[in-house]
Amino acid sequence: SVNPDLASERQTASFSVEKLTVLLDGGTEQTRIRRAVVEAIESDPVFSRENQYFQTQNERYEAAVRKAVHLQKKMHEMGWTENGPEYKYIYRALSGDVAFLLHQVFMRSISVLGSDKQIAKWIPLATQHKLIGSYAQTELGHGTYLQGLETTAVFDTATQEFILNTPKISAMKWWPGDMGRSATHTVVFAQLYIHGKCYGIHPFIVQIRSLQDHSLCPGITAGDIGPKMNFEHIDNGYLLLKNVRIPRENMLSKFCEVRPDGTYVMQGSQKINYFTMTTVRISLISDEVLTPLMKACTIAVRYSAVRRQSKLKPGEQEAKILDYQTQQEKLLPQLAAAYAFHFTNGYLQELFNRGYREIQRKNFDMLPELHALSSGFKAVITQHCTAGVEICLRACGGHGYSLLSGLPSLYTKILASCIYEGENTILLLQTARFLIKCFMAANTGQPVPPSVTYLAAVKHRKCPAKNKLDFLSPDIYTEAYQHVAVRLTSSTAAKLQDLIQSGVKKHDAWNQCTVQLVQAAKAHCHYIAVKNFAETVEKLETKAGIQKIMKHLCDLFALHGIFSNTGAFLHDGYISAAQMDMVTASYLDLLAVIRKDAVPLVDAFDFTDKSLNSALGSYDGQVYQRLYEWAQKSPTNQMSPAYEKYLKPLLHNTLSKL
Amino acid sequence: SVNPDLASERQTASFSVEKLTVLLDGGTEQTRIRRAVVEAIESDPVFSRENQYFQTQNERYEAAVRKAVHLQKKMHEMGWTENGPEYKYIYRALSGDVAFLLHQVFMRSISVLGSDKQIAKWIPLATQHKLIGSYAQTELGHGTYLQGLETTAVFDTATQEFILNTPKISAMKWWPGDMGRSATHTVVFAQLYIHGKCYGIHPFIVQIRSLQDHSLCPGITAGDIGPKMNFEHIDNGYLLLKNVRIPRENMLSKFCEVRPDGTYVMQGSQKINYFTMTTVRISLISDEVLTPLMKACTIAVRYSAVRRQSKLKPGEQEAKILDYQTQQEKLLPQLAAAYAFHFTNGYLQELFNRGYREIQRKNFDMLPELHALSSGFKAVITQHCTAGVEICLRACGGHGYSLLSGLPSLYTKILASCIYEGENTILLLQTARFLIKCFMAANTGQPVPPSVTYLAAVKHRKCPAKNKLDFLSPDIYTEAYQHVAVRLTSSTAAKLQDLIQSGVKKHDAWNQCTVQLVQAAKAHCHYIAVKNFAETVEKLETKAGIQKIMKHLCDLFALHGIFSNTGAFLHDGYISAAQMDMVTASYLDLLAVIRKDAVPLVDAFDFTDKSLNSALGSYDGQVYQRLYEWAQKSPTNQMSPAYEKYLKPLLHNTLSKL
Repeated sequence: SVNPDLASERQTASFSVEKLTVLLDGGTEQTRIRRAVVEAIESDPVFSRENQYFQTQNERYEAAVRKAVHLQKKMHEMGWTENGPEYKYIYRALSGDVAFLLHQVFMRSISVLGSDKQIAKWIPLATQHKLIGSYAQTELGHGTYLQGLETTAVFDTATQEFILNTPKISAMKWWPGDMGRSATHTVVFAQLYIHGKCYGIHPFIVQIRSLQDHSLCPGITAGDIGPKMNFEHIDNGYLLLKNVRIPRENMLSKFCEVRPDGTYVMQGSQKINYFTMTTVRISLISDEVLTPLMKACTIAVRYSAVRRQSKLKPGEQEAKILDYQTQQEKLLPQLAAAYAFHFTNGYLQELFNRGYREIQRKNFDMLPELHALSSGFKAVITQHCTAGVEICLRACGGHGYSLLSGLPSLYTKILASCIYEGENTILLLQTARFLIKCFMAANTGQPVPPSVTYLAAVKHRKCPAKNKLDFLSPDIYTEAYQHVAVRLTSSTAAKLQDLIQSGVKKHDAWNQCTVQLVQAAKAHCHYIAVKNFAETVEKLETKAGIQKIMKHLCDLFALHGIFSNTGAFLHDGYISAAQMDMVTASYLDLLAVIRKDAVPLVDAFDFTDKSLNSALGSYDGQVYQRLYEWAQKSPTNQMSPAYEKYLKPLLHNTLSKL
Repeated sequence: SVNPDLASERQTASFSVEKLTVLLDGGTEQTRIRRAVVEAIESDPVFSRENQYFQTQNERYEAAVRKAVHLQKKMHEMGWTENGPEYKYIYRALSGDVAFLLHQVFMRSISVLGSDKQIAKWIPLATQHKLIGSYAQTELGHGTYLQGLETTAVFDTATQEFILNTPKISAMKWWPGDMGRSATHTVVFAQLYIHGKCYGIHPFIVQIRSLQDHSLCPGITAGDIGPKMNFEHIDNGYLLLKNVRIPRENMLSKFCEVRPDGTYVMQGSQKINYFTMTTVRISLISDEVLTPLMKACTIAVRYSAVRRQSKLKPGEQEAKILDYQTQQEKLLPQLAAAYAFHFTNGYLQELFNRGYREIQRKNFDMLPELHALSSGFKAVITQHCTAGVEICLRACGGHGYSLLSGLPSLYTKILASCIYEGENTILLLQTARFLIKCFMAANTGQPVPPSVTYLAAVKHRKCPAKNKLDFLSPDIYTEAYQHVAVRLTSSTAAKLQDLIQSGVKKHDAWNQCTVQLVQAAKAHCHYIAVKNFAETVEKLETKAGIQKIMKHLCDLFALHGIFSNTGAFLHDGYISAAQMDMVTASYLDLLAVIRKDAVPLVDAFDFTDKSLNSALGSYDGQVYQRLYEWAQKSPTNQMSPAYEKYLKPLLHNTLSKL
């Protein structure tokens, strides 16, 4: 039975929830396939996530391996293939709770970096799981700055082998997933030396564990790096190499080869590689970043519709916490952001598909823009969504703090996305470097990529809004965002030039501008996200109330951004104080409007109870029953393990020497 | 051996670290006592926190009980008493990792709410640990709003007993610490009914477990609420009461008594109670909020001085990440906030001591102000410090994400402080209610408490700063903060009145202003914190470089607040765009200045390696060795538990049916 406080929220939806779900999926056929995959996975007890919050790191790891192995069988049974339409929904249906993800990366790196001969040898072995692969790049002392990696691979012409070593502790490989306990092979990135000369970082296939009994190979020290804030199910590992010899054929050699005599030969272009890196950053947005935020919103909004606390009106029943303006101000902007970035993700995917087609035609012109967008949006979206999940957690008070709410795990997992695949600050500075370069080019009349042509365009000097309703016009707020992005880019470019002209060295000048460069990069991405949301809404069909509610969310996303960062818009008077008061008024009005549809808006994300795995967020809103039922299953609900040894002697006053 | 990259940071300190430590402690004698307590605790293996990051919830709980029991013995041995000068350092030295904290609350509530007779009966039993107490207030469905509690206590004149019941699932007690598995008794808050009439919430002593064998008493269902984001060592519990009968004498009756015939008698004043609640909020700031931020700063700053990443200048060694402006901008404002709030805490303590003296003289005039300040500062400081710890964690990249860094535990623990002892948003609205009331009063010429007299004073309409150095003048920035606090309070008061005058009902109008009321309350607290820091610096002795470095931190704290919230200062033109550029310039300059003393500034917090319990933050900066050594101790470093069952059949291609 559905909690009546939740049921009543659904009766007044202003739009068709099912139609919105289909829109998010990209079509009815996609919705059908997704639901079929979810149903198949969730009805299979091997994939169960029940009791997950009670498990140790060891238990979580074992379950993830079990699921990965079972998944092979399941795919075979269901007729799902890696190129089929179902594939992309599997990981989501498993909530990412599965091992051997690095095995995929191992295979991809061989496909991309290996010669045809290497691909022919290794890919079938990997596909049939005759080995388990990993990917060993990061070291204890080196992450983002790849040139700094210290692992060495010295070519020995006498034996036609590479000799791999970890010269010092900071060179130890650290973090590779699946490597701590599962992998038999890995791709090691190391500095290549031939006849004493360093040729930089190259990838080598190294066997680390016996295929017979899984014992470590000679010269290999490897293990698990221990507990992390989340990802208990993954055996992130360390690897120490001592005079490990591998055949010459194990250096991945699509782009560079070492001949038997030690001659180093470069071949082809590595630009495609550069592109691969940028696509990874985009590909993680959907499953690793948007899904957790959507889940957190679902949990927090449903809970806020059934939790009653204090009285809003004297003499009445206690109010739903969703009726408090402060609660709306916490949750609804996160909901708007989830929708906004869902559409941003679509925009980026489309752009990257176009880029890929161009690259296949050997046209690499789009690469710098794609790199800047993927870096900037990876940073902005992960940052925004991580903050959003934390807000949802805190908005649920004490119950949000219980692991059983599901929110702590969502938070501790999404937090990692701010760090992996490029630390966010460094990525934003990559975007900023592109912006500054394009700004300079645009202002000297040179052509620039489409996403940054606005940097040269002359626009209004003042926002033309006359009343609060004007701020519900996408033209008005999109231009305001554009104005701020241009202002921050141009003022930072000017500061940079001033410093250099005053004699500061270029790299010092750059460092002294980085705080402001980061602001400019964020403003650029925020502008594009707002613009894209507004354009998407414009194109939606007007039926079934979908366009109307999406327009509200777009307005909220835009106005929340202004309200939370008023200084950027007030600084040069583009928005006046009086206009900012209009923004605030419109923003607060919108909260009350969207609040009415809050539950239908999270229902449209279409998460099953099993995928939410939350005592607070289930479809029926039976929060207290579920918390109590789940708590009773906790392994801490046995007689106190401290009783005989400590409590009893204390209470019976028989503690020795007290 | 100390990492040379860290050692070099200490050689150039501009001030005496020892003198600053003494300043923080409040005198050389305090420093001496604190160090003696830390030494005694840390040299005792029973209190060890080694391997803590590898333990399960059950193991953590058992260790906490063991430590609590052992602490009794230790205090006896060392001659420490609850009224001695050592007492306040014990909890800090244990990093809070100890059971029976609620036993203290149990005792305090009896002392404050019990009659002399009740105190005489229960306090000796509790002191001698002939029982273990807890405190059962919060319910599954009710937290902050105490009047909403649903547990009932019906007086039965026939038997002279109260009959306690949990009428529905939302009335189940939920969260009380020490209650899940340890406590034998608890203070239950329940609605008192006599002859069918409800008299509101009252406290009752209820036995829940047998003193003989620890089994649950008749009518009692109790257990542990399961895993949380932190506090694994505490057995937060649930409690369900079914016709539990307790004698009439078990209602704590200092302020109200039920006579044998059912007559309800009020006596004395409950105002002192109200004061107790506010002091709890202040008392948690030091150990639960400031200490974690100081630890996080210590870990992150030391790590940033030894971690090298990428090249700042071409051709040179990779740079310390502390040399990047963006890293400084993450960490140094957190360091400044730790110092700022340390001094705020001193200010609040002093104010509360004064308030206590007044109250003992039956003068309750200071209560509203103390309540407003304790609520507002509890919220502002917990929020600020929680965000600060998260920034420190993220600033350490991947290694910050490892539990071995210590940062995840600091974060997941401090996060709870935003929720417990009053949810922050609700507390800020309490402060705002006081501000609005005082603003109205002040503007009609009525007297108001000292901390809010500024609301009526007429000040500059424009900031008088002429160049960036002017923004290093405390008068300039303190007045800017004051101006913003007045503006936000007065504009929200005006909005509130407008709404009411336009016919909106009072409670609706209040709700429609709450987002802005929260802003006003924060601005008020921020102003007081800046003002107090500046005044504290003014009074410091000028010797040994202490005043100079504290002045820098005060400036940074103030300017960071403006830089992060420019809109509030730009809104009405109090600070102009040109002046804001000066703020930015001064702020960024300060980062480079304070960076030179960053390591000495965290050294002054004087944490031992054991209390930090961090592979990244130790005094010697041997980060990589420690990460590797600790990881090897992880229970995940055994042969894969999935090998025989899953990996071997997969690799040997003997999985059935594949």
